[in-house]
Amino acid sequence: MTPFSLSRRLTAEVLGTSFLVATVVGSGIMADRLTADTALALLANTLATGTILVVLITLLGPISGAHFNPVVSLVFAMRRELKATFALAYAAAQVVGGILGTFLAHAMFELPLLQTATTIRTGGGQWLAEVTATFGLVFVILAGLRFRSEAIAWLVGLYITAAYWFTASTSFANPAVAIARSLTNSFAGIRPIDLPGFIIAEVLGGLLALVLSSWLLMEARTAQSQHTHGN
Amino acid sequence: MTPFSLSRRLTAEVLGTSFLVATVVGSGIMADRLTADTALALLANTLATGTILVVLITLLGPISGAHFNPVVSLVFAMRRELKATFALAYAAAQVVGGILGTFLAHAMFELPLLQTATTIRTGGGQWLAEVTATFGLVFVILAGLRFRSEAIAWLVGLYITAAYWFTASTSFANPAVAIARSLTNSFAGIRPIDLPGFIIAEVLGGLLALVLSSWLLMEARTAQSQHTHGN
Amino acid sequence: MTPFSLSRRLTAEVLGTSFLVATVVGSGIMADRLTADTALALLANTLATGTILVVLITLLGPISGAHFNPVVSLVFAMRRELKATFALAYAAAQVVGGILGTFLAHAMFELPLLQTATTIRTGGGQWLAEVTATFGLVFVILAGLRFRSEAIAWLVGLYITAAYWFTASTSFANPAVAIARSLTNSFAGIRPIDLPGFIIAEVLGGLLALVLSSWLLMEARTAQSQHTHGN
Amino acid sequence: MTPFSLSRRLTAEVLGTSFLVATVVGSGIMADRLTADTALALLANTLATGTILVVLITLLGPISGAHFNPVVSLVFAMRRELKATFALAYAAAQVVGGILGTFLAHAMFELPLLQTATTIRTGGGQWLAEVTATFGLVFVILAGLRFRSEAIAWLVGLYITAAYWFTASTSFANPAVAIARSLTNSFAGIRPIDLPGFIIAEVLGGLLALVLSSWLLMEARTAQSQHTHGN
Repeated sequence: MTPFSLSRRLTAEVLGTSFLVATVVGSGIMADRLTADTALALLANTLATGTILVVLITLLGPISGAHFNPVVSLVFAMRRELKATFALAYAAAQVVGGILGTFLAHAMFELPLLQTATTIRTGGGQWLAEVTATFGLVFVILAGLRFRSEAIAWLVGLYITAAYWFTASTSFANPAVAIARSLTNSFAGIRPIDLPGFIIAEVLGGLLALVLSSWLLMEARTAQSQHTHGN
Repeated sequence: MTPFSLSRRLTAEVLGTSFLVATVVGSGIMADRLTADTALALLANTLATGTILVVLITLLGPISGAHFNPVVSLVFAMRRELKATFALAYAAAQVVGGILGTFLAHAMFELPLLQTATTIRTGGGQWLAEVTATFGLVFVILAGLRFRSEAIAWLVGLYITAAYWFTASTSFANPAVAIARSLTNSFAGIRPIDLPGFIIAEVLGGLLALVLSSWLLMEARTAQSQHTHGN
Repeated sequence: MTPFSLSRRLTAEVLGTSFLVATVVGSGIMADRLTADTALALLANTLATGTILVVLITLLGPISGAHFNPVVSLVFAMRRELKATFALAYAAAQVVGGILGTFLAHAMFELPLLQTATTIRTGGGQWLAEVTATFGLVFVILAGLRFRSEAIAWLVGLYITAAYWFTASTSFANPAVAIARSLTNSFAGIRPIDLPGFIIAEVLGGLLALVLSSWLLMEARTAQSQHTHGN
Repeated sequence: MTPFSLSRRLTAEVLGTSFLVATVVGSGIMADRLTADTALALLANTLATGTILVVLITLLGPISGAHFNPVVSLVFAMRRELKATFALAYAAAQVVGGILGTFLAHAMFELPLLQTATTIRTGGGQWLAEVTATFGLVFVILAGLRFRSEAIAWLVGLYITAAYWFTASTSFANPAVAIARSLTNSFAGIRPIDLPGFIIAEVLGGLLALVLSSWLLMEARTAQSQHTHGN
C-alpha cells in the first residue's frame, strides 16, 4: 500500500506515538500547574490532544497509516490489511514511542524521567467507558475509511475531543498510550496495576467495532450478492 | 436514495442518537463533577456535543441520513423525501437510541440507570428559545443540502456549538434527545412535565424553517418559471 | 451575480444579521449569568460568535453575499461590485436585522426588549482597536475572495475568534452590530454616545484595507501590464 | 514561484508577522486583565494564536509563502527553495513586523509602547521545549508541503494550539516573535537576556526537522533509485 520502507513506517509510528503521548502528558502537567480547576485542566488537555491528533494522522498517515495504537494495528491485521508480523512490529514501535513521549514531557517540565503513576482508574464503570471509547474510535476509523478517507484525521481528532468528556475514563482507548501513561505520576497517569483492565476493555471495544461495522457498512446490493454467492 | 437496507438505516439512527445522548449527558456529568463553574461545565458540554455531531453525521449520514431527530425526519417526510412510515420508524429508533444513550452514560459514571430529571425548564422564554433553536437547526440542514451538502456535518456541529450559548434553553432542538434527557437527574436533565412545551416548540420551529426556506432558497429564474406555470 | 431576487437578498441580510446579533448578545447574557470570570464569559462569547459566522456566511453567502455589515457593503460598492442603491438597502436591512436580533435575545432571556447600554467604550485605544479589527476583517474578505473564496466563511469565523481577544475593543468591526449592541444593557453592550467613534473607526479601517489590498494583491505581471497601459 | 514582486512579498511578511505578534501579545494582555486563572489566560492566548495563524497563512501564503519566522526562511534557503539574500530580507521583515506588532498591541491597550520584559524563561527544560516545539513546527511544514500542501495553514494552526500546552515554554518556536516578545512586559513576555538560549534552541530544532524529514519523507522507490545513482 504505502510506498515507504518498513524502517520509515516504524519510525513514523515511534515519532507519532511519542508526540501524541508527550502532548497528553505534557499538556496535563502544564494545565495542572496553571489552574486549580480540574475541568479547565481537562479542557486544555482535550484541546491539545484533539489538535495534535489531526496533525499527526494527516502527516504520518501517508507513511505508516498513523495507527499509534496496538488495537488499531490488531484490527487491520484481522482485516488482512496488515501482516501479523508487521502488526507486532507496529505495536512494539508504538509502546517504545509512547514511553519516549512520557520521558520527553518529563524532561521538558524538569521532572524525574522515571515515575510510577498512583492515579486509581479501575472498576466496572471505567472498563465500560474504555470499551465504549475504543469501540467508537475503531468505528470512526473503519467507517471513515469507507466513506470519507480524506477526512479521517479530522474525524479522529474530533471524536477524541468528545470522548475525553463523555466517557468516565477520559478515553484512553489505546494500550500503548495507557502503558506510557502508567509511567507518569501527573494529571494523565494511571496505576500500573490498573493497566490490564484497561487493555482488555480496549481490545474488546475494538473487536466489537470490527464486528458491527462488518455488517453495518455493507450496502444492500453487496449484501444480497454475498448472500447469493453464499448459497 | 441510500443503498443501505432499512435495518441498517434504523441501526444507524439508534447508534447515532445513543452516542449523541451519551455525549450530551456524559459530558455534563463529567464537567459537573470537575468544576463548580457552570459556564465552564457548559463549555465542556458544548465542545463535546459539537464535535461528536460532526463525527456522527459524517459517518452515519451515508447510511441513514443521520437525522437523530424526529423533527428532521418529519420535515423530510413533509418534503416527500422520506416515506411517512419510514419517518415513524426513524422517530421510534431515535427515541430508543436516545434512552439507551442515557443508560450508557449512567452506567459509565456508575449512577443509577433509571432516574427522573428535576431541572425546571419552562416558560415563554424557554419555549421561544426552542422555537429559535430548532428553526435554526432545520434551516441549516435545508440550506446546507441546497448549497454545501458535503459540509453539512460541520455546519450542524458549528451551529449547535453556537446555539448552546445564544438560546436561553441551551438548544435541545430535538424531541428524542429531550425525552432521553428527562431520564437523567444530572447537568443535562429536563423535568418530564416540561417535555410537552419543549416538543411543541421544536416542531413549530422546524415547520417555520421549512416554510421560510421553501421561499428563500428559490432562485429568481426558478421562481419566475413556477409563477408562469402556475397561471 | 447572485440568481436570487432582491427581496430574498435583503431577507438574507436581515436574517443573517439578526442571528449574528442574537448570538453575540444572547451568548453574552448566558455566559454572564453562569460565571463570575469575565475571561470565561468572553471565551464563550467568542466561541458562539466565531461558529455562527461560519454557518451564516456559508449558507446565506450564495443568496446575498452574506455581508451583515455596512462597511463590507460600502467596500463592495466602492469596488463597483454592488450598486450604490443596493448597498444602501443592504445597510438598512443589516441595521433592522441587528436590532431584531437584540430583541430576540432579550425575549429568549426574558429581559425587557428595550434597553440602553451603559458600558463605556471610548478613547484612542478603543478607536485604534476598531480601525485594526475592521482593517483585518475587510482584508480577510478581499484576500479571501482573491485566493480561497470557497473558504471565506471559515476565514472570517477564525479571524473574529482571534480578534475578540487581540483587539482592546473585542472587535465590533461592524456598524450595524454596534448599533444593535447599543440597545442592550448586558455583557455585549456599548453606550449609544460611544457609537460615532466606533463607526468612524470601522469605516476608516475598512477603507485602509481596500487601499492596501488593491496594491498588495496585484501580481507582478498584472502590475507591469497596467503600468505599460498607463503610459 | 510566486508571481508577486519582492516588495509585495516583504510587505506580506511584515504584515503577517505584525498581526501574529499583535495577536500573541494582545490576547495575552486581554486575558490577563479579565481573569486570575493562568490556565484560562493561556487558553484564550492559544485560541487567538491558533486561529490567526490559519487566517494569515491561508491569505498571505500565496504572496510570500507566509513564513513569518526566520527559522522557516533559513530551512527553505538550505533546501535551495529561497535565495540566501531573500532569506535575509525575509528575516529582517519578520523582525520589523514582529516589533510593530508589539507596538500595535501596546497602543490598543493604552500601555507604554516601549517596554522590557521581565519574565524569566531559561534553563534546560525550556531549551529542550523550544528544540521540540520548533522541530515539530518545521516537520509539520515540510511534511505538509509533501503530502497536503492545501491544508498547511490548518496544520500549523492546530500544531501551535497543541504546542502551547505540551511544551514547557508554551512554544515560541520563532526567533522574530521571540525578539518582539522581549519588548513587552506582559503575559507573553520573555527577558531579553533569555533570547539567545531560545533562538539557538529554535534553530537547532528546525535543523533537526530538516535532517529527519529529508530521510523520512523519501519513498522506497525514490530512495532505491537515489542509492543506485549514488553508486
